[in-house]
Amino acid sequence: MKYYDNEIRIRYAETDQMGVSYYSNYFIWFEESRTEYFRALGILYTDFEAQGLFLPVLEAHCRYHSPTRYDDLIIVRTWISELGKTSMLFDYIVRNKKDDSLVSEGYTVHVFINSAFKPVRIPELIVKTVQVIDKP
Amino acid sequence: MKYYDNEIRIRYAETDQMGVSYYSNYFIWFEESRTEYFRALGILYTDFEAQGLFLPVLEAHCRYHSPTRYDDLIIVRTWISELGKTSMLFDYIVRNKKDDSLVSEGYTVHVFINSAFKPVRIPELIVKTVQVIDKP
Amino acid sequence: MKYYDNEIRIRYAETDQMGVSYYSNYFIWFEESRTEYFRALGILYTDFEAQGLFLPVLEAHCRYHSPTRYDDLIIVRTWISELGKTSMLFDYIVRNKKDDSLVSEGYTVHVFINSAFKPVRIPELIVKTVQVIDKP
Amino acid sequence: MKYYDNEIRIRYAETDQMGVSYYSNYFIWFEESRTEYFRALGILYTDFEAQGLFLPVLEAHCRYHSPTRYDDLIIVRTWISELGKTSMLFDYIVRNKKDDSLVSEGYTVHVFINSAFKPVRIPELIVKTVQVIDKP
Repeated sequence: MKYYDNEIRIRYAETDQMGVSYYSNYFIWFEESRTEYFRALGILYTDFEAQGLFLPVLEAHCRYHSPTRYDDLIIVRTWISELGKTSMLFDYIVRNKKDDSLVSEGYTVHVFINSAFKPVRIPELIVKTVQVIDKP
Repeated sequence: MKYYDNEIRIRYAETDQMGVSYYSNYFIWFEESRTEYFRALGILYTDFEAQGLFLPVLEAHCRYHSPTRYDDLIIVRTWISELGKTSMLFDYIVRNKKDDSLVSEGYTVHVFINSAFKPVRIPELIVKTVQVIDKP
Repeated sequence: MKYYDNEIRIRYAETDQMGVSYYSNYFIWFEESRTEYFRALGILYTDFEAQGLFLPVLEAHCRYHSPTRYDDLIIVRTWISELGKTSMLFDYIVRNKKDDSLVSEGYTVHVFINSAFKPVRIPELIVKTVQVIDKP
Repeated sequence: MKYYDNEIRIRYAETDQMGVSYYSNYFIWFEESRTEYFRALGILYTDFEAQGLFLPVLEAHCRYHSPTRYDDLIIVRTWISELGKTSMLFDYIVRNKKDDSLVSEGYTVHVFINSAFKPVRIPELIVKTVQVIDKP
């Protein structure tokens, strides 16, 4: 699997008084899409936390191309473009399902840590399962 | 201290496309106001969690009288109207600072639990410090 | 259709440091479930707003029976139990999909208003389409 | 005024099950800090929207250095580092008040638009009032 397309419907709560989706929500949709990317590969993120491993965000970025609105369906294309010893980079491209227009692009950098918040090697399950690609 | 008046300024993120504050945010403002009520009495809620005690919500209610908007200042009057062996009831009245108009009224019922999620007696510090009143 | 069962997967963003879903999120899940209840009947809430009609919340209530956690699937059973001239009452029962256990119960009271925030009659499309039931 | 230091107390709602502040909230705190930066200069962002001008986000970035927790006080140092004809760049450095440690750094790029979502010149009030600096 090179990437995963996660479909999300925008909630009323996620709009603001400008009539569009509030900008920080994209990072929540990125997070949901990471979970679903892993699930599509048979990996449950909850299993890592059950083992005392966490995957916090070191860096987050988003570029907004066109607004989305309440009840829009968006597709968050999600893939891994870098996989280091302890860190990994997720890339996202968001499109509006109704016309396939580009909504936003972003990335998040993560590091695996243990419950003492110390970096640890990326679990072997991930290393052997994910496919690192530059662009989908 | 009979009650505590907690002032909150409404964030852009808290509005929705109707141009007013989204309804679930009132419960977040209630939570912030509980924390500040305790702090005004010299009680830090974080100290309870450090001792393995938590105060989840059993029931929550809000009646909305008039909308609030981005950048409005609201005053959340907060008091305790019931204090049982393991549970307690917080009441809230929200007013808009600009004209003192009634915005909303609500309550939350809580129970103290330990880290095994079992109800425990309300800490003595609370019992001896808070003043239970019916209405402010 | 007597009720609609809306399935929602809990996001990491929706948890708090107690390790469970934060209590105000249930009201966001209720909102999403109202939208889906209408959609299942062929009614788009967005069509009302396009006509200058809004459906704000007058009252909201939730009783919490058991906590939910990140990645849990919940089923929000949603129905209308009262339909007046300008107002309507939505009821919700939330169950955890993994064991069908009761998670929470709630309701929201709404009024239809125009863009001047004045109450208006419930649209005929709703009156003739929805089925009012006491309990599912 | 070269920059504005906005103090924010972290809400329980803003934590996640890792026990720290959820990463998307930093962008909400940036937004609150932009509003307060303007207010400190005597500029009300609400006045722009009253004139049909909006300031959406084109790009957002955050680098996370150390986690913050419930009830922490953070200081969001906020300044403008670029001011173009229609766009502007806000920079932020977040520190934990208790030990002045670096929490995160970020920026947001904005464009002024009219109600038709077309870019317009930055209002003269801003151009003549703000001080553009590289670093505080």
